[in-house]
Amino acid sequence: MNVIEIIQRKRDEGTLSAEEIRWVIAQYTADRIPDYQMSALLMAIFKAGLNGEELAAWVDAMLHSGDTLDFSHVAAPKVDKHSTGGVGDKVSIALGPMAAACGVAVPMMSGRALGHTGGTLDKLETIPGFRTALDPPEFREILARTHLVLAGQSETLVPADRRLYALRDATGTVESIPLISSSIMSKKLAEGLDALVLDVKVGRGAFIKDPGQARVLAETMAGIGASHGVPVRAVLTDMSQPLGRAVGNACEVAEAVEVLRGGGPADLVEVTYRLCEEMLLAGGITADPSDARARLEQAVASGAAFAKLVEVVEAQGGDPAVIHDPSLLARAPEEHTVTAPRGGYLARADALDIGVAGVRLGAGRERKEDPIDPGVGITVLAKVGDPVEVGQPLARLAWADPGRLADALPLVERAFAVSEEPVAPPPLIHGDVP
Amino acid sequence: MNVIEIIQRKRDEGTLSAEEIRWVIAQYTADRIPDYQMSALLMAIFKAGLNGEELAAWVDAMLHSGDTLDFSHVAAPKVDKHSTGGVGDKVSIALGPMAAACGVAVPMMSGRALGHTGGTLDKLETIPGFRTALDPPEFREILARTHLVLAGQSETLVPADRRLYALRDATGTVESIPLISSSIMSKKLAEGLDALVLDVKVGRGAFIKDPGQARVLAETMAGIGASHGVPVRAVLTDMSQPLGRAVGNACEVAEAVEVLRGGGPADLVEVTYRLCEEMLLAGGITADPSDARARLEQAVASGAAFAKLVEVVEAQGGDPAVIHDPSLLARAPEEHTVTAPRGGYLARADALDIGVAGVRLGAGRERKEDPIDPGVGITVLAKVGDPVEVGQPLARLAWADPGRLADALPLVERAFAVSEEPVAPPPLIHGDVP
Repeated sequence: MNVIEIIQRKRDEGTLSAEEIRWVIAQYTADRIPDYQMSALLMAIFKAGLNGEELAAWVDAMLHSGDTLDFSHVAAPKVDKHSTGGVGDKVSIALGPMAAACGVAVPMMSGRALGHTGGTLDKLETIPGFRTALDPPEFREILARTHLVLAGQSETLVPADRRLYALRDATGTVESIPLISSSIMSKKLAEGLDALVLDVKVGRGAFIKDPGQARVLAETMAGIGASHGVPVRAVLTDMSQPLGRAVGNACEVAEAVEVLRGGGPADLVEVTYRLCEEMLLAGGITADPSDARARLEQAVASGAAFAKLVEVVEAQGGDPAVIHDPSLLARAPEEHTVTAPRGGYLARADALDIGVAGVRLGAGRERKEDPIDPGVGITVLAKVGDPVEVGQPLARLAWADPGRLADALPLVERAFAVSEEPVAPPPLIHGDVP
Repeated sequence: MNVIEIIQRKRDEGTLSAEEIRWVIAQYTADRIPDYQMSALLMAIFKAGLNGEELAAWVDAMLHSGDTLDFSHVAAPKVDKHSTGGVGDKVSIALGPMAAACGVAVPMMSGRALGHTGGTLDKLETIPGFRTALDPPEFREILARTHLVLAGQSETLVPADRRLYALRDATGTVESIPLISSSIMSKKLAEGLDALVLDVKVGRGAFIKDPGQARVLAETMAGIGASHGVPVRAVLTDMSQPLGRAVGNACEVAEAVEVLRGGGPADLVEVTYRLCEEMLLAGGITADPSDARARLEQAVASGAAFAKLVEVVEAQGGDPAVIHDPSLLARAPEEHTVTAPRGGYLARADALDIGVAGVRLGAGRERKEDPIDPGVGITVLAKVGDPVEVGQPLARLAWADPGRLADALPLVERAFAVSEEPVAPPPLIHGDVP
């Protein structure tokens, strides 16, 4: 095997054999192929794609680069939800407890903030004491006891993806359907799930912005799941504007708690329930979507879902006092309000600009090693289509460092546009697969 | 400036500004952009190309990554010849002395064996004592005195190309017209030439195999030269089979000496004279091609061209005895003959296979740090179109190591094909630019 010949063949739109793909992934993981050769291959794949057989081989090679998990000690159906990444996406923190309260076991493995998008782990770690790094026996024990774990991915799962992801991030090779789908699906297949629900984000704040491409991504991931015996249901949800109102870390936990208490912004509630319904259907709790909805509403109304979050926070070492009273969560000391420059209808609340502004405030990371500031964030006070009056607050920035505020503010200001004519709000759900 | 944004724009077929290109090349040369990002950019350029303005900026940035030379102390017109690389291509060793004997100053900077192609420096270094690494004052002094220098490129010229070339070689990004043309032309423009003659190889043993693409490459390089005030003449010559008979190092020096003595294989003689004529025309020695030819024939017949080689070998510390008697050059101890499996007409003598076989024998390098064996090589005894009889020798391998012979032999055997029907020989010259 010769890595240069493999790069050249893919560069020239040729096909790689399963054996070549296994060899490349294994050699790269073992540090015998350098980053500069792998990045050339990744760019060639970005441009030339992978066919169905190549993609299956690529996923398999990634999956078998490390350990796979087995949760057969838990009788309940194991279902996870994965989002392709968005701004203000705190769905997991409400959805996990709701699904677990309805009989699904949720071994949820989340990630950290990436680029302009937030990360569930960073949000959860604003709960004092909450540990997201669990060793496998502890993960298994908590899952068996509470049917819910909210943790990071074990270092031993899909080590190839860890390195490939960092390399793609640094080499302009992120937004590729075969590379995204193999990265997500290899990790999820390693979790030993019975089914998987995907939230494929669409629009300016998503990694894949075009709805047609997002559908191809969803179908590609569903195909990979099917060929490994794991049913996948995907919902395409809007990410042209942030989801809900809160963009940050502690503030997003607070908003997820609102949803578990029966409140919260309508768009966040709708997306959370829709994805959670799919989990109940995929897990075989019920075959009827309206029954799934009723069970979820009951779990929230009865307090069972809220109690499940309290239970898992305690199980993972966190202080449940902040769940009972989210005003105890971190909050940056200063506030700045952005107002509407004129009256009319909100025409744009750009998720990408607001996401980048959040990073600049300190809610995300510009470099992997940067710390995040749990208390900073942006509260988005109007949705596209809403009537607005001149001077009406559109966003509030919670900030701590004046230099960071100065960096973030122009992006927040340009994120909003007001139109004189009425504006139709974007659809919240763009479709589903299958 | 953000290198990831630059990679992404080129990946998406966008245009880079001159400022961005200067920045990328300068940062890479200063070790502030890592190889893995540059290789992703190179692959994006391989796939998406560079437009005319981008290419001009790329060449300028390379050219100004290091020193440029000034040979204005030499009154004669300074003309170099550069080949895009072939198998059995010992043209420079005869052409340099011939041109210098006719009044052109030839500050020739050559390279080493690369892939399956030979390198003039490796060939010259089979002359005992001959030094190809000259410091700038010595280079200038020898050029002024003999009008001919046969040396390697100074480390301080186009340092960006040194690193980029090694990276391209390792990442499957060699065969790109903008990358090849910018690599060659930045080095040649740094040499302070009055004119440049290019030998653009075409066919299986060339890096660019397709005649149409080879013409685009020639025109691209001529355009770069013109925009820097350096006239470029390019000749497209055949590299479907090796040039001349000898493929190796010492054996190629011997064959070049044959040409200087008025002998040598017809194809090698014709290509050498044709390129040398272009040098005399480009240098303004004469405006008439047949007069140029006559001057060259006279320089060979009179012994002036041969004496010029002796003179430069002495000037660069070499032993002229091996030029006077090439049988004193290194020669591997063993010989193996490949014969025609049947009678007919030679239909193929594949330059790529024979070149790779030469590398396997030890005449080239598989890794940059490998030593070469000066005495091994392959003598190709028939040309495409020649009638052959069953059992007639087609090639002789001079070898030293039986393992290397075993690796090389199957390639030499498959390089030849004999047809029952007469075969037309390929054209030796495929065209010229302008």
